[in-house]
Amino acid sequence: MSTKLIVQKYGGSSLNSPSRIRAVAEKIAERARGDTRVIVTVSAMGRSTDDLIKLAREITPHPPQRELDMLLTVGERVSMALLSMALNEIGCPAISFTGSQSGIVTNVSHTRALIEEIRPDRIRRELDGGKVVIVAGFQGVSRSKEITTLGRGGSDTTAVALAAELGAAQCEIYSDYPGVFSADPKLVPAARPIPRLGYDVMLELAVLGARVLHYRAADIARRYGVPLRLLSSFEDGDGTRVGEEVSMETANATSVTCNRHITLVRVVGEGSELDRFCQSLGETDIQVLIYDKARDGGRARLILVVDARDAEPLAAVIEEGGNRGLTVDTPDDQATVSVVGSGFACNARAIARFERVLAGAGIATTAVKSTPQSMTAVVPLARCRRAVEVLHAAFIEAD
Amino acid sequence: MSTKLIVQKYGGSSLNSPSRIRAVAEKIAERARGDTRVIVTVSAMGRSTDDLIKLAREITPHPPQRELDMLLTVGERVSMALLSMALNEIGCPAISFTGSQSGIVTNVSHTRALIEEIRPDRIRRELDGGKVVIVAGFQGVSRSKEITTLGRGGSDTTAVALAAELGAAQCEIYSDYPGVFSADPKLVPAARPIPRLGYDVMLELAVLGARVLHYRAADIARRYGVPLRLLSSFEDGDGTRVGEEVSMETANATSVTCNRHITLVRVVGEGSELDRFCQSLGETDIQVLIYDKARDGGRARLILVVDARDAEPLAAVIEEGGNRGLTVDTPDDQATVSVVGSGFACNARAIARFERVLAGAGIATTAVKSTPQSMTAVVPLARCRRAVEVLHAAFIEAD
Repeated sequence: MSTKLIVQKYGGSSLNSPSRIRAVAEKIAERARGDTRVIVTVSAMGRSTDDLIKLAREITPHPPQRELDMLLTVGERVSMALLSMALNEIGCPAISFTGSQSGIVTNVSHTRALIEEIRPDRIRRELDGGKVVIVAGFQGVSRSKEITTLGRGGSDTTAVALAAELGAAQCEIYSDYPGVFSADPKLVPAARPIPRLGYDVMLELAVLGARVLHYRAADIARRYGVPLRLLSSFEDGDGTRVGEEVSMETANATSVTCNRHITLVRVVGEGSELDRFCQSLGETDIQVLIYDKARDGGRARLILVVDARDAEPLAAVIEEGGNRGLTVDTPDDQATVSVVGSGFACNARAIARFERVLAGAGIATTAVKSTPQSMTAVVPLARCRRAVEVLHAAFIEAD
Repeated sequence: MSTKLIVQKYGGSSLNSPSRIRAVAEKIAERARGDTRVIVTVSAMGRSTDDLIKLAREITPHPPQRELDMLLTVGERVSMALLSMALNEIGCPAISFTGSQSGIVTNVSHTRALIEEIRPDRIRRELDGGKVVIVAGFQGVSRSKEITTLGRGGSDTTAVALAAELGAAQCEIYSDYPGVFSADPKLVPAARPIPRLGYDVMLELAVLGARVLHYRAADIARRYGVPLRLLSSFEDGDGTRVGEEVSMETANATSVTCNRHITLVRVVGEGSELDRFCQSLGETDIQVLIYDKARDGGRARLILVVDARDAEPLAAVIEEGGNRGLTVDTPDDQATVSVVGSGFACNARAIARFERVLAGAGIATTAVKSTPQSMTAVVPLARCRRAVEVLHAAFIEAD
């Protein structure tokens, strides 16, 4: 008998109450009938990870990273155990595994570990025994047997990595969003669902702020050719399939996205002082979204965009820079807005149009940059929605 | 009988004399024995395309693009006909096809057309009849039956696109280089050959100056999962295989590359004037390698890096900008140097190290930027070699 393996991932909002968990269990049980084997990756319920972080912060402003990982892994343990109970209750045999039990081996970087290898022996055994296997997302174990977490988007990463390792026929990511759109439908009513998307465009969208899939998961899917499906856990629909590119060479815009959770830092001053600033920056573990440094004689300037959640470790570096005579400016309420597609950027004509559309709507840009697959501008947060609208009208609706 | 299809591509230097063409024919004939079917994509002989462009320029400084395409397609026609003769001479049945005869359908952008579709009926028929099929690289035909060319790297693009369309078992790119190295062995004697490379790293290397494969070809290979092999046509060896990534999530440097054929333009001045400059830029068809624009109040500045061959169309825009009061600076003899890998950039720690290594060697950088898969600095051309050496020592040899 030929069986087909499906990996599903349910995010926190899909599991945020006992009734939601029961509904998810029904969905899984139906899928697991017949010859389909199912692995389910779960996040912590609702916002419980944030609550745990808050708890830790009430104990100490600087919790040891190892203990923070120990604490945070509680979240998925709760949701996976409850989901397993719900499945067994309706007659669908299921078993839950922690990241460690699932054989998800990571490096030693606590709170932001990278998956090095997966040893899915126990998972395979239980699948062969006819059970639905529920795997804690977001967590793993280092070779020295320490508990680690994968950081932001960790559950997406776990699901796609398992699908890659086990050669799943499909990896289904269930979230609040019924797939990828040409812009966020809440911002642009004319936004169109995108039924099919290439890996590279998905990755660029994820990096630039689309919240339907984390970029690490998009990257693994691309590298291993994992067939992805992005679906809503709240409504039926076909969602978005992500796979190999469909056309040979294209030059067109696919989607407009924005990131409203960024911190912009502009630094200007004497070159050697700015270099020292950048070295201090290098002693933090922040992820850099945009890093553009330019030097002209002795003067230099840096445009830095980081995730807003990384602003805290930045504060000390900024203060130190200010004390050393650098002009450090962190304007409040900024956002990035991007047009993502393939082959159209890195083209002077497309960039000029991008800038013209924003200027035509009276939207000031602090920085504009281009990569082969996207054009991005930093704009005031208050104008972000309008920027998405006019770019969508120009690059998607007009074409 | 199960047959296997191989697509080979030979560049101009592999075909630059009758004796080289005969040697290539021997290689092909040996390969085509047994049950392997072979398609060969050829470039024009040696530097003949450059000679044709020079001829056209002696007639008129601004040749109509359509006629330029008509002229340039002569180059592959010569080499494919000669190669077909050499193969038939040694008893290996072969037939040559132009881009149009091969069914390579492009859009209408003369001198830089994108492949929209391939209709390989004639190719299939001749392969089925047991012939080696020689396809002119670099050229195609639009739906309105106009002859087009694909622009730089066009023969690589043709080869990989054919391999994708026909599901070839392998696409072999023969050039002067015996594969990809951790740096150019002419610059860094300690450079190591890279036996296996993921698509994404190959693409980033190609964009940032590695000359072994054009980035459009790397992009098609990645999107269609075409198994690639990069080989020397002058010496035996295993070369570099390019395929799916081998490790789950990594954070390491793969190769150091540089681009010594760039033009750097720095523009500073009043914001609205700089905007006008960028709009003029958008009326040219140049490809932008780096585009970073930053604005601070009414002032703005732009760092622009383009291929040196695009400097000419830039000249008029630069002059116009200067007349309007912008400070436009195009320092001579600049280069970009890049560390390419996966997962390590966008990380403040890695960027700080990148800058420290260059500063430690006394190498001034005009601009530094980072993407998720690379870190790039603009450095003086005269220091480019040294920059490659020290970055290779720090990021490749030390790890």
